[in-house]
Amino acid sequence: MQFSTIALVGRYQDSQLADHLRSLARMVNAAGREVLIEAETAKNTGLTEFPVASFEEIGRRAQLAIVMGGDGTMLGAARSLAPAGVPVAGINHGRLGFITDIPLQDTHSALEDLLQGNFEIESRILLEGEVMRDGKCLYSATALNDVVLNRAGRGGMIEVRADINGQFMFTVRADGLIAATPTGSTAYALSALGPILHPTIRAILLVPVAPQTLSNRPIVLPDSSQLNLTVLSMSRIEAGASVHFDMQTWSDVQPGDQVNVRRAQNTVNFLHPRGYSFFSTLRKKLDWNRLPATGHNGE
Amino acid sequence: MQFSTIALVGRYQDSQLADHLRSLARMVNAAGREVLIEAETAKNTGLTEFPVASFEEIGRRAQLAIVMGGDGTMLGAARSLAPAGVPVAGINHGRLGFITDIPLQDTHSALEDLLQGNFEIESRILLEGEVMRDGKCLYSATALNDVVLNRAGRGGMIEVRADINGQFMFTVRADGLIAATPTGSTAYALSALGPILHPTIRAILLVPVAPQTLSNRPIVLPDSSQLNLTVLSMSRIEAGASVHFDMQTWSDVQPGDQVNVRRAQNTVNFLHPRGYSFFSTLRKKLDWNRLPATGHNGE
Amino acid sequence: MQFSTIALVGRYQDSQLADHLRSLARMVNAAGREVLIEAETAKNTGLTEFPVASFEEIGRRAQLAIVMGGDGTMLGAARSLAPAGVPVAGINHGRLGFITDIPLQDTHSALEDLLQGNFEIESRILLEGEVMRDGKCLYSATALNDVVLNRAGRGGMIEVRADINGQFMFTVRADGLIAATPTGSTAYALSALGPILHPTIRAILLVPVAPQTLSNRPIVLPDSSQLNLTVLSMSRIEAGASVHFDMQTWSDVQPGDQVNVRRAQNTVNFLHPRGYSFFSTLRKKLDWNRLPATGHNGE
Amino acid sequence: MQFSTIALVGRYQDSQLADHLRSLARMVNAAGREVLIEAETAKNTGLTEFPVASFEEIGRRAQLAIVMGGDGTMLGAARSLAPAGVPVAGINHGRLGFITDIPLQDTHSALEDLLQGNFEIESRILLEGEVMRDGKCLYSATALNDVVLNRAGRGGMIEVRADINGQFMFTVRADGLIAATPTGSTAYALSALGPILHPTIRAILLVPVAPQTLSNRPIVLPDSSQLNLTVLSMSRIEAGASVHFDMQTWSDVQPGDQVNVRRAQNTVNFLHPRGYSFFSTLRKKLDWNRLPATGHNGE
Repeated sequence: MQFSTIALVGRYQDSQLADHLRSLARMVNAAGREVLIEAETAKNTGLTEFPVASFEEIGRRAQLAIVMGGDGTMLGAARSLAPAGVPVAGINHGRLGFITDIPLQDTHSALEDLLQGNFEIESRILLEGEVMRDGKCLYSATALNDVVLNRAGRGGMIEVRADINGQFMFTVRADGLIAATPTGSTAYALSALGPILHPTIRAILLVPVAPQTLSNRPIVLPDSSQLNLTVLSMSRIEAGASVHFDMQTWSDVQPGDQVNVRRAQNTVNFLHPRGYSFFSTLRKKLDWNRLPATGHNGE
Repeated sequence: MQFSTIALVGRYQDSQLADHLRSLARMVNAAGREVLIEAETAKNTGLTEFPVASFEEIGRRAQLAIVMGGDGTMLGAARSLAPAGVPVAGINHGRLGFITDIPLQDTHSALEDLLQGNFEIESRILLEGEVMRDGKCLYSATALNDVVLNRAGRGGMIEVRADINGQFMFTVRADGLIAATPTGSTAYALSALGPILHPTIRAILLVPVAPQTLSNRPIVLPDSSQLNLTVLSMSRIEAGASVHFDMQTWSDVQPGDQVNVRRAQNTVNFLHPRGYSFFSTLRKKLDWNRLPATGHNGE
Repeated sequence: MQFSTIALVGRYQDSQLADHLRSLARMVNAAGREVLIEAETAKNTGLTEFPVASFEEIGRRAQLAIVMGGDGTMLGAARSLAPAGVPVAGINHGRLGFITDIPLQDTHSALEDLLQGNFEIESRILLEGEVMRDGKCLYSATALNDVVLNRAGRGGMIEVRADINGQFMFTVRADGLIAATPTGSTAYALSALGPILHPTIRAILLVPVAPQTLSNRPIVLPDSSQLNLTVLSMSRIEAGASVHFDMQTWSDVQPGDQVNVRRAQNTVNFLHPRGYSFFSTLRKKLDWNRLPATGHNGE
Repeated sequence: MQFSTIALVGRYQDSQLADHLRSLARMVNAAGREVLIEAETAKNTGLTEFPVASFEEIGRRAQLAIVMGGDGTMLGAARSLAPAGVPVAGINHGRLGFITDIPLQDTHSALEDLLQGNFEIESRILLEGEVMRDGKCLYSATALNDVVLNRAGRGGMIEVRADINGQFMFTVRADGLIAATPTGSTAYALSALGPILHPTIRAILLVPVAPQTLSNRPIVLPDSSQLNLTVLSMSRIEAGASVHFDMQTWSDVQPGDQVNVRRAQNTVNFLHPRGYSFFSTLRKKLDWNRLPATGHNGE
């Protein structure tokens, strides 16, 4: 890949970000590449000395986007740039990031690695979904982590029927039901006791949240699956339910509504500078398989 | 026990209930005992031919309350009658009940068993809790199942610090945190992967819902524990959080608020006609330890 | 596919099987196809009136093998026939089967479906593994369900280091560690709290048994993974450890030994007569997502 | 309590222990108290300059036993001294201990705390059990952690029926079944996904290991329960099964054998110097509720 034009995307509502972004933009220019500042980023940071572009323009003009911020910013940028196929790299700014894997202090060397081709490409799938009522689409969106169908917060539960490719799969009463990508398997689905899926697995993970049955178990489905989640009932109908596509929320879900989920056509490419290890990230950031100091079996 | 006065409590908003209650009231009278119809029950069912009494009066005058309905009705009646020490027996009407264990068709024989002293007494603890802000109590209530501190429904999570007897226990980021009685261990806590506690255990069970850590595990605490749950933060502060005491909800929880939970002074006695088995109920109504038809280890 | 020659494989040490197999063999002949009885099957059942063939010959001559028995027989036949690419169909005889999905009483219609092309093909991956000591291979085998590294039975635990593609993944102290195919995800791995993987997923599932850490979670890995499991230590060294490839056991594992696991080159095709549903099998045979009769949240 | 005679118990087969024990013995003498060295400890360490006593004599003569070693040593000493009611305090030597909570370097100040009455008493229950065949007791023992009924190590499973107080509870096919005290809830039962029980809870915890059903869930039973575990069958009968009482093993279990478990009459008192916190131990030694550095929900 030739990264002749590089877009920078920053965390929204973070005033301290401007200096770091400016510094990064200058590094990019110093390397002889054109820089584009994403429009909202420019507005929020007041970074006006570089060319500004919408995500759409970035999609047409850039060969790489570098995201500085937290995982939420990364998710948003990745969704926006997936249709154009612009790869993204993530520099962490703020709380330690999981998918924004480059530490802030490594910005310079990471940029060098990227420009010199010293990186790994990790292609990740996205989901697309829509909320249907009486045959009409009320809302549609894409998700890099998950599509979550949720009861409202005032207690109670929802009863959901899950079909796959037109075939009945199961009915569950639960707080919610998560359809996650492998990327999302380490997000909310993990809290709901789902397994970890390696990012390169091509699959959709289905995990209920607090199911009212002892016999549930998460299931890993082919990425060609057409999922159809029908809200059968709610214990507190006045409270309603909601659907979340990553952080984008459709909050007016009623009994009878259907949420359709399938893999999106596009994938998004994450670029990781040399030395990246998914397993190391699992260990360091999620404490995965951390050995306790002791057991007391007398062993 | 001498059951000279028996109160009847019915499920709210269930029109078909009147006939069953009337029939039961007549059986009670026919056995030479006085009957009292709980006031709301009388109002909702139009059952006007028998003496009517508030829960408070029932507490003063009755030696037994028979609840007809679902588990929700049972929970409410048990909480109301616990201070007066009136024991309750539950006849299931509607969806198969877990704590309303007498099948509707067995009403007559169950009543006979109760009147003849052919029953087991199961004493169950309750919790009491209060929502505190700036040293003031905003709300307080008792619970027979659980006190649940919950994020609002629009996604996000809450960060809660749990102290016990003034000592730090843990901080958790989760959808919610459940403090349950043994009775509640087979309700919402079970969905959140808590263990089953036999009803006679004297303990408080603490179970998080969808915790954002791999290293959580439910804990069973002494019933003398003073629990203090402090809401540290919320990912979506505008959405707020809520506390549920069984089904009684306080919905305006803000960061800094504390939920104090301890065992209530009173217990409630459940009466079970001859032949009751807690373990049989677990197997039949929760499918506990149901053996699948097969495995495929080739064994 | 043209099934001009069909092999029959029966459950070992099951005398009642002969009649059913004979009847099936006659159906095959009546349909104008050649029948081969697998050699051990012929020996155990005394079925001598049909041509007999070893698995190797079956691999050369047959286009289909029908297995009658339990899942163990099916696993063995599938492993034996995978190299030759002969598809298998399973008729259940004995305890209700999970992968032998055709009920015995449906034998005739299932055969008709198979001969008329009314079937679905489900391609399933296998694992191959080897036990290494000081650079020498002590044992090697294939598995359709799983490769399991296990402590000996007298208590204690084993400490295992898991590497993937030469990269450190984790160290675990546990009763054992399971590397399972999607087929095996509904076998032993399910007991150890692994997720269900749809049979068409191309992945290897890694699940520890009773790990001595709170922070474990199963992981789903690409089927291109080279897994390397090294036994670091055992709490009771005199007891040793063992490795199981489905039911084939290598029992002399010592500290320092390595178990290498990767996907086998061959796949095995399962043929399912019309109407087969993997999800229905999950529900019926594993009680997956079975809704309990009730909850008692008062809902 | 007046600790005029203090016994010292050391870890077996640990040659480096002698110096630490001698130093501790001198501290005890310097404080004007009599010291007794447990007989095996004296033999293994060559500590001959102090009076030596068997556990039985210690039971008669000492008011306190200080255990130096790992949790295994502590478990053994506690079981041996429970009948006589001698309290124990544990100094950790070796791998970080869970129930031996006093760090080696704090030996002196801990001893001072103990002698001055600056300690907390934690009373812990034990289990006693027996293996029965044809009405005869083959083996009996006590356990401070757990009684574990286990399949043999060569794969396969055992089918066990669990009764309580003469009443059927459930049948399970599994690798094993654990009956644990609250003390044992943080040992093997925790690996098998059991809950944590506070040490002061009076209960028996029942947890299966790798059960072949989706609908299992651990159960917490009253400490008055008489448990009866009957081995119904084994998938590999030649391999047998075994029962473990902490680390004491009875290895010849056959189908039809019964393992009876109940709470032992005696309790054992653990003494903790000032500042001990059970919850702190859970956090530090088991990583309980350790918050990961990050999540990636974009929050």
